[in-house]
Amino acid sequence: MNQNSGPPAAFVMQQSERFPGVVVHSTAWVDNRASIGPGTHIWMNAQVREYATIGAECVIAKDVYIDQHVRIGDRCKIQNSSSIYFGVTIKDEVFIGPHVAFTNDRIPRAFNDAWEASPTVVEHGASLGANVTVRCGVTIGEYAMVAAGSVVTRDVAPYSMVIGNPARHVCFVDRDGNRAEEACDVIE
Amino acid sequence: MNQNSGPPAAFVMQQSERFPGVVVHSTAWVDNRASIGPGTHIWMNAQVREYATIGAECVIAKDVYIDQHVRIGDRCKIQNSSSIYFGVTIKDEVFIGPHVAFTNDRIPRAFNDAWEASPTVVEHGASLGANVTVRCGVTIGEYAMVAAGSVVTRDVAPYSMVIGNPARHVCFVDRDGNRAEEACDVIE
Amino acid sequence: MNQNSGPPAAFVMQQSERFPGVVVHSTAWVDNRASIGPGTHIWMNAQVREYATIGAECVIAKDVYIDQHVRIGDRCKIQNSSSIYFGVTIKDEVFIGPHVAFTNDRIPRAFNDAWEASPTVVEHGASLGANVTVRCGVTIGEYAMVAAGSVVTRDVAPYSMVIGNPARHVCFVDRDGNRAEEACDVIE
Repeated sequence: MNQNSGPPAAFVMQQSERFPGVVVHSTAWVDNRASIGPGTHIWMNAQVREYATIGAECVIAKDVYIDQHVRIGDRCKIQNSSSIYFGVTIKDEVFIGPHVAFTNDRIPRAFNDAWEASPTVVEHGASLGANVTVRCGVTIGEYAMVAAGSVVTRDVAPYSMVIGNPARHVCFVDRDGNRAEEACDVIE
Repeated sequence: MNQNSGPPAAFVMQQSERFPGVVVHSTAWVDNRASIGPGTHIWMNAQVREYATIGAECVIAKDVYIDQHVRIGDRCKIQNSSSIYFGVTIKDEVFIGPHVAFTNDRIPRAFNDAWEASPTVVEHGASLGANVTVRCGVTIGEYAMVAAGSVVTRDVAPYSMVIGNPARHVCFVDRDGNRAEEACDVIE
Repeated sequence: MNQNSGPPAAFVMQQSERFPGVVVHSTAWVDNRASIGPGTHIWMNAQVREYATIGAECVIAKDVYIDQHVRIGDRCKIQNSSSIYFGVTIKDEVFIGPHVAFTNDRIPRAFNDAWEASPTVVEHGASLGANVTVRCGVTIGEYAMVAAGSVVTRDVAPYSMVIGNPARHVCFVDRDGNRAEEACDVIE
């Protein structure tokens, strides 16, 4: 079928036969050994590797990469092009903005095959904005909010909003993300 | 056809039958309800969603995402992997570098379905460098220049060059991008 | 073959017939005029353009873009979604983390067709972390290490670790990436 005569047969969101209740784009590459909960949608060109676990009712957006053994909870949104590497655990209801890059090797060298992954955890309800970078080995606390473009280099406390490169605490937010203090008004 | 015996039939830039004068890569996913002007090229794995409007003679590069209802003017270049979300308007002759992430939700939470998009506008002739992040709700003025790697957190004046995280004004540039002041020489 | 009844025929890593000893994913787009050394693996949706040269035993990961005439040495790892543009030279054993954006035009304008590329060189054994941005016209010295999320705006000395936006020298590292000075302990 000609791609230009309409959306081609190859470009559709469709019910997966392998993962009950999961909707997968026809260009996504999901390994049979992954585990994916019902209600989850996986979009164009996303990749889910062997032994990854994704919960129910998640959105895995265009071009996202979910590495081997990564664990993602329920009702998470992982936006375009984000890369979630081996060693990362994402709990329930986490928002990962577009182009977020996790890492798992503190001192990467192309010629070092003996490196070990440093684990990273994103706790329940936290949000990471667009283009955030996460240096590995940290925990981002529940309902924390990392501003777009920030670089996380150490642990983020629960309900803390952090901003900048490196990311620093500027105020606390509530569960809905609203700032809890006037001091936050001066930041941008 | 075997992918390895030459460029496969599935991997070509070709004239679109749906959008007159538009050239689309066979792996791009363009919704029939989008509007695209003649002379525009859409590359590998790009996605253009329903009701998006793209002008004439644009380049939409590899892996770019154009969300629903986004409006892009004529003669724009949108480089690899950039994500342009609902709520963003891009005027004519705008340069969007690779990996640029726009946003549209100031306080994203995965569990908040009632969020509203904050609009962002990029005015005529402006340039955003590689890996720029744009926090939503701002206007980037005409012929402004945002240096690569910067994080835009508030309005950028016309012809202003801004740099850093957060992005700050360092000097004015002319229409061609040349710096108008000696002071710019000391920045990097 | 239905994508949902198992990994479809279209989604496989396979020996290339065009490039001896090279393994290419069936969704990658490699131009016949590129040169690629044996033992190199090219993953999902990567693009290698005309006259690009890639050495032996490299990994070119998901969604990577290798522009025309780019030169990459042996045993390099180029991680997910990185964009390597015309004018960039990467020597042997270089690690390029995920989402790294190179550039080649110091003052990009969408309407300027007469721009010239500023060359960038990454020397032997250097490492660039995730989400690094490289403003063009610089040399990154051998075994240098650029921390994740940094923005490189000027030359980086050999064995130097640089961090931040703009990236600044914080200490020297050895060939394996270990820090050579106590002072590094205070950075993050």
